Amino acid sequence: MRRIRMIVSYDGTQYVGWQTQPNGIAVQAELERALKEVTGEDITLHGSGRTDSGVHARAQVAHFDTDVRMPADKFAIALNTHLAPDIRVLFSEETDDTFHARFNAKDKQYRYTLQLGPHALVPTRDTALHLFRPIDTELLFRCAADCVGTHDFRAFMSAGNPMENTVRTVYSSAWTQDGAYLYYDVSGSGFLYNMVRILVGTMLAVARHELPQDAITRALASLDRADCGPTAPAHGLTLWRVRYAGFDTEEVLGRLFGGEVLP
Amino acid sequence: MRRIRMIVSYDGTQYVGWQTQPNGIAVQAELERALKEVTGEDITLHGSGRTDSGVHARAQVAHFDTDVRMPADKFAIALNTHLAPDIRVLFSEETDDTFHARFNAKDKQYRYTLQLGPHALVPTRDTALHLFRPIDTELLFRCAADCVGTHDFRAFMSAGNPMENTVRTVYSSAWTQDGAYLYYDVSGSGFLYNMVRILVGTMLAVARHELPQDAITRALASLDRADCGPTAPAHGLTLWRVRYAGFDTEEVLGRLFGGEVLP
Repeated sequence: MRRIRMIVSYDGTQYVGWQTQPNGIAVQAELERALKEVTGEDITLHGSGRTDSGVHARAQVAHFDTDVRMPADKFAIALNTHLAPDIRVLFSEETDDTFHARFNAKDKQYRYTLQLGPHALVPTRDTALHLFRPIDTELLFRCAADCVGTHDFRAFMSAGNPMENTVRTVYSSAWTQDGAYLYYDVSGSGFLYNMVRILVGTMLAVARHELPQDAITRALASLDRADCGPTAPAHGLTLWRVRYAGFDTEEVLGRLFGGEVLP
Repeated sequence: MRRIRMIVSYDGTQYVGWQTQPNGIAVQAELERALKEVTGEDITLHGSGRTDSGVHARAQVAHFDTDVRMPADKFAIALNTHLAPDIRVLFSEETDDTFHARFNAKDKQYRYTLQLGPHALVPTRDTALHLFRPIDTELLFRCAADCVGTHDFRAFMSAGNPMENTVRTVYSSAWTQDGAYLYYDVSGSGFLYNMVRILVGTMLAVARHELPQDAITRALASLDRADCGPTAPAHGLTLWRVRYAGFDTEEVLGRLFGGEVLP
């Protein structure tokens, strides 16, 4: 028995999310189907975490166990021939059996993309939230850092998802602008259900003067979902990077694709 | 009667090209359908030129005549509500009736995008040609300038397209690299059928040591299609910019979308 880990990229538009659901096709299910076709085995794939319906991944990490003797780097190539082009296995390698994609993840980075201007630009129609009306970008940028640190993020979680421990640590949280695009990059030890999308929705409400400038700080204190803005749409969100001790998707992608890789 | 000009962006993946064809849906036909729905008129749209099946446009220019009294900038908004998200009218304005999108174009710029690395990256799966095997990028970069100037480009034209005048002027022709992506930007007075794709196919053959380093210069002298490489696939090509006296798509997009607009 060998353990293989891989980096998976996908456009979530056509999928119900990472995890298998009754109501449509999941990315995990597509990968498990491809694994069955390649190996003949019924394999359970373990991802670093779920992504919601419509959310994308630039670098999701997943592992599985197999008895198939195939050079580990060939799994990526073999799986891709059984997958639609909106799911790509970008890398595969053997790892020791103590590695677990979910439990060993040290930090994760998400990116949320906004597009400004009068019309939704075609190349990013499925991966950026188009804002027709201008927003106060200075307010947007300023409040991003308010969630950095270790906090009880209970207010930034969708209802109906009971969870014992709602304390998480956010390492960095900032916006950058490049022409018509605003990128929100947030990294942390882990994220509650819809946490990034509620953070973005709250910052957007601040930038539209619908919530006070200190809305994030208030909600972290009150623990009340009602103090946050609405959940931002799924399609602007991308799982950008996952880091483990000795394994960083950014380092691997940089090595394989020659430096900076576009979104 | 008023004349309206507009900038249109599209992902060509789902279309048979700009011009109406018997075998599928054309971008022009989609826009004319939307114009009928908005104006009630049977309008013929004139583009700056055709794009082939699968070729994209970041900034195609087109004009039409109408009797409808609507603020000219509202045509873009109205048309977009009748179009799929892979076609967007980014701008519309009234122009005098001497303007003609095709005949007045001073120069056009195309971009061809290559993606290097072991797997096709998901976000650009439909807009970049993925090269699995490494190429000699130094050779690729070096031969790009060989087509600059006024030449008879007959060798760089697909067979079966008889045309009297095959002399064209290329103003600039160069590659740039950004991480995994190689961008070929070429601007000129006009381009023959498949000319950019044959130029790219020839440069790729040089970069793979399948044609001599001076292949472009040889083909410009011999006028023989057999001295060129194969026609590069359509999906890597994008109509990038069209310029007229007093009207430059780049200037308009920069103004509307805040500086640099991503592909």
